[in-house]
Amino acid sequence: MENKLLENRFLQQIGGNFKRAPRQLNQFLESDAELLALGDGSTLAITTDCISEEISTGLYHDPDHIGWMTVVVNLSDLAAVGAEPLGLLLSESLPADLPESKRVALQNGIARACEAIGTYVLGGDTNLSGCWQMGGTAVGILAAGEKCITRKGAQPGDLLYTSGPLGLGSAYAFSILFGAGGPVAYWPVPRLKEGKIVRQWGSCCIDTSDGFFHAMGNIMEVNGVGFQLEAAFSSFIHPEGLRISKTSNLPSWIFLAGPHGEFELLFTLPAAHEAAFIAAAAAIGWSPIRLGVCIATETCVLPAKNGEEIQISPATIANAFTEAEGNPQAFLNKLLKLESLWQIQQKVS
Amino acid sequence: MENKLLENRFLQQIGGNFKRAPRQLNQFLESDAELLALGDGSTLAITTDCISEEISTGLYHDPDHIGWMTVVVNLSDLAAVGAEPLGLLLSESLPADLPESKRVALQNGIARACEAIGTYVLGGDTNLSGCWQMGGTAVGILAAGEKCITRKGAQPGDLLYTSGPLGLGSAYAFSILFGAGGPVAYWPVPRLKEGKIVRQWGSCCIDTSDGFFHAMGNIMEVNGVGFQLEAAFSSFIHPEGLRISKTSNLPSWIFLAGPHGEFELLFTLPAAHEAAFIAAAAAIGWSPIRLGVCIATETCVLPAKNGEEIQISPATIANAFTEAEGNPQAFLNKLLKLESLWQIQQKVS
Repeated sequence: MENKLLENRFLQQIGGNFKRAPRQLNQFLESDAELLALGDGSTLAITTDCISEEISTGLYHDPDHIGWMTVVVNLSDLAAVGAEPLGLLLSESLPADLPESKRVALQNGIARACEAIGTYVLGGDTNLSGCWQMGGTAVGILAAGEKCITRKGAQPGDLLYTSGPLGLGSAYAFSILFGAGGPVAYWPVPRLKEGKIVRQWGSCCIDTSDGFFHAMGNIMEVNGVGFQLEAAFSSFIHPEGLRISKTSNLPSWIFLAGPHGEFELLFTLPAAHEAAFIAAAAAIGWSPIRLGVCIATETCVLPAKNGEEIQISPATIANAFTEAEGNPQAFLNKLLKLESLWQIQQKVS
Repeated sequence: MENKLLENRFLQQIGGNFKRAPRQLNQFLESDAELLALGDGSTLAITTDCISEEISTGLYHDPDHIGWMTVVVNLSDLAAVGAEPLGLLLSESLPADLPESKRVALQNGIARACEAIGTYVLGGDTNLSGCWQMGGTAVGILAAGEKCITRKGAQPGDLLYTSGPLGLGSAYAFSILFGAGGPVAYWPVPRLKEGKIVRQWGSCCIDTSDGFFHAMGNIMEVNGVGFQLEAAFSSFIHPEGLRISKTSNLPSWIFLAGPHGEFELLFTLPAAHEAAFIAAAAAIGWSPIRLGVCIATETCVLPAKNGEEIQISPATIANAFTEAEGNPQAFLNKLLKLESLWQIQQKVS
């Protein structure tokens, strides 16, 4: 089984050869946000993310929603390092013929997301372009003495958690791209409060912006570990994913496989921290979901119904999208082939 | 005469209605980089700029040069606030069919510019897109107690300076877009060292990334002031601008008018600071050029040969590009009409 993400190989080619900044605390591809040591002991967190294919493929089409998502995709990377947001810069490339009503709706979506999250647009850059693209850069801070968390740090024996149900992003993408399953409400809010607790008790963290299996593949690759899952899919797949998997007669795990995620956090923590972590989560009314345990082998072990264990490769699942060159139907066909091969749904659910 | 920049009206529509961040020290459009007060008294400077039209129009075509400019356009905005760079995030939207050799050249240009400037790529985001766009975000810091400088602060009586000759950006654009005047070497380096001195002694500062008259129009608009120029064009137009103006039989001031600048700094300082400023500049081997004096009326007064004064509007000149919808020939025609109207070249040079 392939254990490396094709996307990371591509990113390594693009950005892997630049010299590292002396103040930078994280290595390349090892953190959702870049972390810089400031002079006074505090840490700057900064991250950039551009909405491009989501618009060109029609996945995002409502300007209000595009504005909302521009804020969310960037702030979610601050959540994954547990930073306190200072604000957001925008880099908007807008079609010259974008009607004023759509421009207003776009800015309205940005303003509403900032309000909901408690953050601010600091400034930006605007271009007229043939391609509508919405870039953003979020910047945040960790006070002196506050522990950092990145994608690196998971140890065998650590526990794997998610901040909430997974698969809403795939359910939304399925409903739009296949025109099936009915409308799916998709207005994610970054897990900023939760990220601060994860930073305190966790050993590694990543957001599920690119889907669950992609996030898991990343953690496996960075840490050289694997996972033994213990939770049933029904306990952590989002109700909308479960609903559409039934109405469309698809294996439910497919809603964990799409590259369009839901901006939850996927994280590990030492078993010794679990009680304190759960107490801190409960104090803010948050119920994280325990998924399994970190193991020393780079594989994902699923508990099958008959006591047998089946192994799957999160990277193989995530790479199927790259190999399908982003074509939704080709991607789905590849996932269904993996189901035939591994019989996940049949053996596990 | 129109005294407001059309571009600012557009930017006001796009970004003017967002709530301001409580920590933000500058107002909307009043600084080249956004300035945020950090807890310890230091100031974060952050700015984003995307190269888009420069690539789609063919103004930038060599990938190595595109990489270089991606770094420069962003770091120059840090220079204009006198910040110490921490580094740069990239947001690259690349054509799927970009040959590997061009991708390597692009990354090489980025790396070379970072090396020349003494800064680093911190991280980024990469998308495949129909439109080649290179976004960047530069982040820098001002230590506790260091005075900030923005576009706002010029007072009548202040002196107007530029960090170096102006018009290389227009000369380069002319040579590429009109295929005339021969090749122009254009590898600007942001005025970071100089910006730190300007921050100390100056009252306002902006870079000439969008050209001299655009920069002057911005300072006029933000501060409600104007300028009495005292310097002859030949003393501050770049040799390449003077050369091409002769070979192409164009008024030399036209090389101050294009929206493609040269990343010098345009700044004001109280007359009482001039001696100390000049001494500090000399200490780093820098010879800034004095252009004139700030006046209380929103106009630009040029000293004509016969002792008569002629008034021009920098905003009208800069707006000609917007009104020409970016068409180089239509823009040039509009500038030549302004020459007929104001007879700048005839009366001044």
